[in-house]
Amino acid sequence: MLAFERAEYLGRIAKTKESMERAGVDVALVINQSNMVYLTGYDGRSDYVPQMLALASDAPEPKLILRQQDVPCAVHSVFLQTDNIVGYPEDHIGSERKHPYEYVASLLKDWHLDTRRIGIERGGAPITPISFDRLSRALPDVKFTDITGMIARQRSVKSPQELVYMRQAASIADLAMQTAIDSIDAGVRQCDVAAKVMAAQIRGTPEFGGDRPVSPAMPAGVRTSSPHLSWTDEPYTDAMPINIELGGFRRRYVAGLSRSIHIGRPPPRLVALHEATKAGMAQALAAAKSGNLCQDVEAAFRAMTRRHGFEKNSRIGYTIGIDWAENTASFQRGDMTVLEPDMTFHLMLGMWYDDWGYTLSETFRITDKGGDSFATLPRELFVK
Amino acid sequence: MLAFERAEYLGRIAKTKESMERAGVDVALVINQSNMVYLTGYDGRSDYVPQMLALASDAPEPKLILRQQDVPCAVHSVFLQTDNIVGYPEDHIGSERKHPYEYVASLLKDWHLDTRRIGIERGGAPITPISFDRLSRALPDVKFTDITGMIARQRSVKSPQELVYMRQAASIADLAMQTAIDSIDAGVRQCDVAAKVMAAQIRGTPEFGGDRPVSPAMPAGVRTSSPHLSWTDEPYTDAMPINIELGGFRRRYVAGLSRSIHIGRPPPRLVALHEATKAGMAQALAAAKSGNLCQDVEAAFRAMTRRHGFEKNSRIGYTIGIDWAENTASFQRGDMTVLEPDMTFHLMLGMWYDDWGYTLSETFRITDKGGDSFATLPRELFVK
Repeated sequence: MLAFERAEYLGRIAKTKESMERAGVDVALVINQSNMVYLTGYDGRSDYVPQMLALASDAPEPKLILRQQDVPCAVHSVFLQTDNIVGYPEDHIGSERKHPYEYVASLLKDWHLDTRRIGIERGGAPITPISFDRLSRALPDVKFTDITGMIARQRSVKSPQELVYMRQAASIADLAMQTAIDSIDAGVRQCDVAAKVMAAQIRGTPEFGGDRPVSPAMPAGVRTSSPHLSWTDEPYTDAMPINIELGGFRRRYVAGLSRSIHIGRPPPRLVALHEATKAGMAQALAAAKSGNLCQDVEAAFRAMTRRHGFEKNSRIGYTIGIDWAENTASFQRGDMTVLEPDMTFHLMLGMWYDDWGYTLSETFRITDKGGDSFATLPRELFVK
Repeated sequence: MLAFERAEYLGRIAKTKESMERAGVDVALVINQSNMVYLTGYDGRSDYVPQMLALASDAPEPKLILRQQDVPCAVHSVFLQTDNIVGYPEDHIGSERKHPYEYVASLLKDWHLDTRRIGIERGGAPITPISFDRLSRALPDVKFTDITGMIARQRSVKSPQELVYMRQAASIADLAMQTAIDSIDAGVRQCDVAAKVMAAQIRGTPEFGGDRPVSPAMPAGVRTSSPHLSWTDEPYTDAMPINIELGGFRRRYVAGLSRSIHIGRPPPRLVALHEATKAGMAQALAAAKSGNLCQDVEAAFRAMTRRHGFEKNSRIGYTIGIDWAENTASFQRGDMTVLEPDMTFHLMLGMWYDDWGYTLSETFRITDKGGDSFATLPRELFVK
């Protein structure tokens, strides 16, 4: 049931230890749940309570520190030896007096890790200022090094098996989008379409099922000016635009996909924006080859859409993999990250204006010839 | 399209200002997204980037501070005047140099709020230690007061319209659970059942649709020892136990519901655990009347299950409303919170052992006669 061979997890841990050495830390406290998934396979959904992974440079495996109740979630999903899964007592949940981060501090002392150089993810992870205060006060002699982004950066380039899951995720995304296109019509409730779309995301294909999905953004009408609104229980009406951004999910990997749909004949400005964005996507993908910089991809898109009289004022893509956003490189001005083969990006071309908008997006990998998209759906403005 | 009348939002804001006065703060920086929803109706899903609400004690409305791109999400969902919705520039996203919390600091200065007593949610909200450092360094003269939990506590007692949404959510949860019971069978893939369950959660009823759902936990087989694992794409088999914990979602309110299902004749120990837990639930609900303490509910449950030879070692419930857990009162030893009418709780009786488990849960409100459950599904161990 492991998503990857044990050897792949051990390779990731070895790479992390190299990064730790460069960062000058002997112990890494990893709090971002995607990083915990990456290093161990952990498949519980439990990061609404404190949890972390502690990796010591001289230990063969990390320790996974979870709420006691979630220890079996790890037993059934991680590659670790069972004694490397450690629970903190249940009376630390919902308590004013006992704090899980103080328990973590006592574990680090027990393991004699508190005298070593400790790195911790102080950003991009579900640790609050209060939790960090509790940890620091319980370990007053420790000077923590921030390692935010260290592991996420190493996740950028995907392995062959990771690419298998991302392509599977993308084919699920294609199916889910086709379901939306097929079921949207005037008079149909938005929530009834959403129900079919999310069912398609989870059902997957006869060969493989989908993982837990994030709900699609699918604003309709004037709400297409906004990126992150979803369905209502109102019916669609004639002459209505709909923007859909959804993911395919497979073994914790995601592939994002966006299309716009119009009920009835689309207005000329929407057709023009679609043509501009589609042409811009082709240029961006052509520029997305190894050796180029992230900002080159954005520049290629900008040049083409500007020629069509349109301009996008936000980044046009970001690294994607486990969960939606890795928060490392972005396609935007000033991002000098050098593109490497098998980095994966969500090229997200949302064009939002005051009371209308349009979306087109695909997930792809970098090759030496340009971006290799995982999507197979036509780049159309779908008309119903 | 507002979920509540303007007067209800204004009432919530007035209550918050009273709490602020008691806490000795003139300005509240509210970062927990559920609190932002509660005070304004905000319906975007965007708290993966920094965002907050700033409420000054002498201003009629709060300011909502979002990423520029998400301003239209607010325009289409909040009760505020448009000039109280403020965006920070897109070049603060995915940037190493520009930090949204520094922009927030400049806004607070522009609004002359930086010279007043500022409270901020430093826990229970998606603010990292790094973000708080950036804010503090940009406002070196401000001494922040922590207001974690202040607004969540005021959300505990629900208004009549909130109770309408929670009952609607609970009826959706009933439908979704019935869908699971109907579709589970040996040979059926777990993901195919999950697809039907989530479709039922979103479709809702002919009168009202469901909101964006959280994926159900639905471990099967030995994985029933764990609370927070979900489906796989393997088929169910004969003689297999399944635990399902799911929510009904309606206008951002949730009602949790759990049942256990067994394919084939259940083993005697599972039947015994079901009977014990069911009897314990009746005792807990009887004890859940206004005037009693939270710990009394747990004690009533413990006494009954112990009589049956079982013991649960984690809390047996918590406040629920907007999103799943309000992180205020819990049914556990030592929680002296006094129960008040129309507080709502998820009574979550997950009984987990080394390689098996059982779940029974319902969402209910406190009355002077005991807990009034919103669930209508029989409290059975369902056998397929």
